[in-house]
Amino acid sequence: MAPVLILMGSQSDWPVMQKAAEMLESLNVKWQAKVVSAHRTPDLLKSTMEQAEQDGVPVVIAGAGGAAHLPGMLAAYTAIPVFGVPVPSKQLKGLDSLLSIVQMPKGVAVGTLAIGDAGAANAGLLAAQVIGSFDSEVRKRVHEFRKAQKEKVMANSDLELPK
Amino acid sequence: MAPVLILMGSQSDWPVMQKAAEMLESLNVKWQAKVVSAHRTPDLLKSTMEQAEQDGVPVVIAGAGGAAHLPGMLAAYTAIPVFGVPVPSKQLKGLDSLLSIVQMPKGVAVGTLAIGDAGAANAGLLAAQVIGSFDSEVRKRVHEFRKAQKEKVMANSDLELPK
Amino acid sequence: MAPVLILMGSQSDWPVMQKAAEMLESLNVKWQAKVVSAHRTPDLLKSTMEQAEQDGVPVVIAGAGGAAHLPGMLAAYTAIPVFGVPVPSKQLKGLDSLLSIVQMPKGVAVGTLAIGDAGAANAGLLAAQVIGSFDSEVRKRVHEFRKAQKEKVMANSDLELPK
Amino acid sequence: MAPVLILMGSQSDWPVMQKAAEMLESLNVKWQAKVVSAHRTPDLLKSTMEQAEQDGVPVVIAGAGGAAHLPGMLAAYTAIPVFGVPVPSKQLKGLDSLLSIVQMPKGVAVGTLAIGDAGAANAGLLAAQVIGSFDSEVRKRVHEFRKAQKEKVMANSDLELPK
Amino acid sequence: MAPVLILMGSQSDWPVMQKAAEMLESLNVKWQAKVVSAHRTPDLLKSTMEQAEQDGVPVVIAGAGGAAHLPGMLAAYTAIPVFGVPVPSKQLKGLDSLLSIVQMPKGVAVGTLAIGDAGAANAGLLAAQVIGSFDSEVRKRVHEFRKAQKEKVMANSDLELPK
Amino acid sequence: MAPVLILMGSQSDWPVMQKAAEMLESLNVKWQAKVVSAHRTPDLLKSTMEQAEQDGVPVVIAGAGGAAHLPGMLAAYTAIPVFGVPVPSKQLKGLDSLLSIVQMPKGVAVGTLAIGDAGAANAGLLAAQVIGSFDSEVRKRVHEFRKAQKEKVMANSDLELPK
Amino acid sequence: MAPVLILMGSQSDWPVMQKAAEMLESLNVKWQAKVVSAHRTPDLLKSTMEQAEQDGVPVVIAGAGGAAHLPGMLAAYTAIPVFGVPVPSKQLKGLDSLLSIVQMPKGVAVGTLAIGDAGAANAGLLAAQVIGSFDSEVRKRVHEFRKAQKEKVMANSDLELPK
Amino acid sequence: MAPVLILMGSQSDWPVMQKAAEMLESLNVKWQAKVVSAHRTPDLLKSTMEQAEQDGVPVVIAGAGGAAHLPGMLAAYTAIPVFGVPVPSKQLKGLDSLLSIVQMPKGVAVGTLAIGDAGAANAGLLAAQVIGSFDSEVRKRVHEFRKAQKEKVMANSDLELPK
Repeated sequence: MAPVLILMGSQSDWPVMQKAAEMLESLNVKWQAKVVSAHRTPDLLKSTMEQAEQDGVPVVIAGAGGAAHLPGMLAAYTAIPVFGVPVPSKQLKGLDSLLSIVQMPKGVAVGTLAIGDAGAANAGLLAAQVIGSFDSEVRKRVHEFRKAQKEKVMANSDLELPK
Repeated sequence: MAPVLILMGSQSDWPVMQKAAEMLESLNVKWQAKVVSAHRTPDLLKSTMEQAEQDGVPVVIAGAGGAAHLPGMLAAYTAIPVFGVPVPSKQLKGLDSLLSIVQMPKGVAVGTLAIGDAGAANAGLLAAQVIGSFDSEVRKRVHEFRKAQKEKVMANSDLELPK
Repeated sequence: MAPVLILMGSQSDWPVMQKAAEMLESLNVKWQAKVVSAHRTPDLLKSTMEQAEQDGVPVVIAGAGGAAHLPGMLAAYTAIPVFGVPVPSKQLKGLDSLLSIVQMPKGVAVGTLAIGDAGAANAGLLAAQVIGSFDSEVRKRVHEFRKAQKEKVMANSDLELPK
Repeated sequence: MAPVLILMGSQSDWPVMQKAAEMLESLNVKWQAKVVSAHRTPDLLKSTMEQAEQDGVPVVIAGAGGAAHLPGMLAAYTAIPVFGVPVPSKQLKGLDSLLSIVQMPKGVAVGTLAIGDAGAANAGLLAAQVIGSFDSEVRKRVHEFRKAQKEKVMANSDLELPK
Repeated sequence: MAPVLILMGSQSDWPVMQKAAEMLESLNVKWQAKVVSAHRTPDLLKSTMEQAEQDGVPVVIAGAGGAAHLPGMLAAYTAIPVFGVPVPSKQLKGLDSLLSIVQMPKGVAVGTLAIGDAGAANAGLLAAQVIGSFDSEVRKRVHEFRKAQKEKVMANSDLELPK
Repeated sequence: MAPVLILMGSQSDWPVMQKAAEMLESLNVKWQAKVVSAHRTPDLLKSTMEQAEQDGVPVVIAGAGGAAHLPGMLAAYTAIPVFGVPVPSKQLKGLDSLLSIVQMPKGVAVGTLAIGDAGAANAGLLAAQVIGSFDSEVRKRVHEFRKAQKEKVMANSDLELPK
Repeated sequence: MAPVLILMGSQSDWPVMQKAAEMLESLNVKWQAKVVSAHRTPDLLKSTMEQAEQDGVPVVIAGAGGAAHLPGMLAAYTAIPVFGVPVPSKQLKGLDSLLSIVQMPKGVAVGTLAIGDAGAANAGLLAAQVIGSFDSEVRKRVHEFRKAQKEKVMANSDLELPK
Repeated sequence: MAPVLILMGSQSDWPVMQKAAEMLESLNVKWQAKVVSAHRTPDLLKSTMEQAEQDGVPVVIAGAGGAAHLPGMLAAYTAIPVFGVPVPSKQLKGLDSLLSIVQMPKGVAVGTLAIGDAGAANAGLLAAQVIGSFDSEVRKRVHEFRKAQKEKVMANSDLELPK
């Protein structure tokens, strides 16, 4: 299967978006990351998505900030499921990014995750879950990730006031 | 393949959530819809998700309003991808529903759609796109849906002022 | 000179966007209106803008609602100035439309007007003002519009409580 | 009487939630604090609440951030009164936490306090007030706390500009 | 035990606040409702709370809208636990009411419920839960209410598209 | 004439509120500042306002943050005009303070200034303007302040890019 | 003394702003109301304020909606205290009006009231309170208004559930 | 042609607004920058705009923060197109500035850009685009700027996780 494709509007989004890559890595799912800007390289949107469909990319993850048009425009050019990550913006803290990504009109969908690092990591996780619906090996790894996460909480659950 | 499972917190969410069912229907994807309340029937969350995984449900769609905990709690109990639909709330118009669904912590993901009818329809579409990543027949139908939608726009694109 | 081009994401935006056409009409500036959807007809964005530049369109006005990507994507494909009108959305009342249009990243600009009817009318007015910077006849008509508007205020400025 | 139970979604919430513990300590009310995550350890919610009811826990205090589901889900599993503390989130500063906790549907209630440290301290105070409605000793200590707080304000009420 | 005291800033808040009374009624808990305005009858706040403490009122429920100062000011005058209900305001839909009630400073607490009808009903429920922590008869009725509510959901959980 | 009375909910508000004092000082208007907490010293509100009316205080300035009840409660106890200053809150940056102060119900008014330092300074200025409506000497000083401020802008109005 | 001057940006603001006139009328304070638009008749701002100062107008009340510049611009041209009323806007419900009026920079102040009818009425009340600081007759009428308002609350303070 | 006129409410806005100057400089378009305050120097607004029209200034760029009245008031005095830049405010991060600038009433238009640096740069770019509609030399430079920007993205589009 082709790697999950992680796209973002600017190289400055990478510190956030690499959390998606790290999550996929930890779940042993292949990924590839690239900068494609909806506004600065609009010509690349269509060809990138056509190539992705041809390659058999199962999921596209797209992050952008402010008037975040990248996830929605990629979704307009493909039938591959697109998950969007609102990158925090300097002044409005990603509330603009969130609304620009999630409020898509009927007919073109973007599955949107939380603002920032947690959302990027969860985009990777959700991509793995999608693959896991059709690949029992990946499904199993998601279950193991969840179990490890649960055990980590339970191992340290009692709290004391500092003396 | 098992039908897409559409869950919602209250029967009063059905007028919104049935847009998801209608979209799946139009794409010839099987679905099943049920009321399961995170707050009023918490015991059902786990068993419903365990059954769904056993049945091979490929995608869960969950809608809820206000302090909308259903999508996130379902996601906590399963590795099936969960898509969340913020149902409009009476006073805050679904902004509370949106933030309660989308702002999930790292480790449990919900792919969130737009507030209200458009979001519900797009949850159905996105579910079909997920299936389409592994089923070329469904992928083809998504492409046809998109093409029809495009032609509808192009057929009536010129506008005049009313005389 | 080619007419001002008024574009919108859906025919349902026309009741708002026709205020732009009416304003241009009242200032005796030619216009043409069309539906072009960023999400449903993405292929048309580039060709529409290339044709517009070739035709000598002086200003593009674009309206859209929700995750309103049309104005920004048109701006990405052209050097013609683009003015954006946030069309009111059903739940968030156009706050999502406004942020999706105005919060553009450095390098691709959209001059954004108010949410709804007033914004659409003002997009037409601002287009005429742009033309007026290079066409003294249009400039004069803008001054006359302003003067008429001022006189209308002054003619009825005293207010009484209803008996 | 069993101690007030302070629960939180993550150990990283403890610096905020310990203000609840400190307030209870200062009012001489017993407490116990634990990490229980709605999303990462959903299985523990029910058993924790059943045990609490059996032990006679008079009040549960629950803190969480972002899509903060913990207080509402605990409330779904118990008839013990639950007080929720919105922990500040990184980007939206706890507005998401607040709405996710307070906007509960009819039938399952969470008494919600202010975002952050003040809210955590007040959750402890409110728990003591609840106990004080049935235990005159605790009621008396709440009155003394209030009196001390009042005297502290009055002792230093005059203000001068710095020279 | 003295009845739960339901106070509100204006008679126009009664259609919302009576949901609290109805919930208490259905749980067989006694209540009394009165208009006391923080702004128009400030002198009554202290005496009303002193009387309530003397009478042994176990919980005060207070509703107000806009700059909603009633719950916080009542809390300032008593050690009885106070639950606040944000009544929807005409323009800001209760977001102002919510923030005015919930964002109390450290040292004076208000347990805040959801905006509007659901919040008022839940204030009644939470008051009963508080009493239930010390009165097993009331606790039992809360459990029965929850059970009935759960059964109602489960009795009608399957959904069909309208033919 | 008695000094303008500057009140605030906590000593920690003084760094903001002293801007009011500094403005009054610069306009040669007498002032007095005190901490009076709506929540921690509610008994002092009435007596403080009765004394102020008896002393002939012309204007009260009140600052508070979060669920900022002080200005509105002072206004409830007096016919002296009250000007409110929203002190920035830690998480919501004073939006909660602003709405809690400005959204007063019909019948008790607070003239509200901007959030933070500028608002505090302007509360002092507005107090002087009120006095200036009845004292030509103070009016003259306000005019001089405005003139100086204007000249300061005009003296340095040209801007260059840094070399 | 010259009448209180009530100004507004458009005749369509009069249904809101007449609440200010009615309040002044009920307190037996003279008023005069006029339309003056910051944007459509900017030339009138200065002359209107100069005339007002010359006439001895004690207070200016100004209402406007959306990008509400009228109160702040009037304040820029006069030393008379200006009270601003945010008129509800169609889409953002007056939140834009409120922020445009209240967030004035240091050096030019507007005392801002609540959004809509209550704010307009309170602007009239606050104007009377300002005059009352220097005119014991008006002060007395404000006290009587408050007393009547209090008695009205107390006369109907008990509430029953509808049978 | 006369230079583009860049105006701002305060010298403290220059670090933001100089991004407009830098953009114009890079596109070889002449500009001039000045401080003109809507509130502190209202008398200068009209004369500055009359002079600008007489000089043939093609575009005015205006930046301001908080209750940002400068762009709208300049637009009220001229038929030259005005582009507004919301300067970030200390507490509300420019959301107040944005709404104060963009929500203009019908009849006086401001083309509004993003909050902060990106918006200032884009105001310069949009001004150049306006000139470019009538000056093929400037149009060409805008195209070159866009092309360079595109090539910069494409030269560094592949991303790797840090080792």
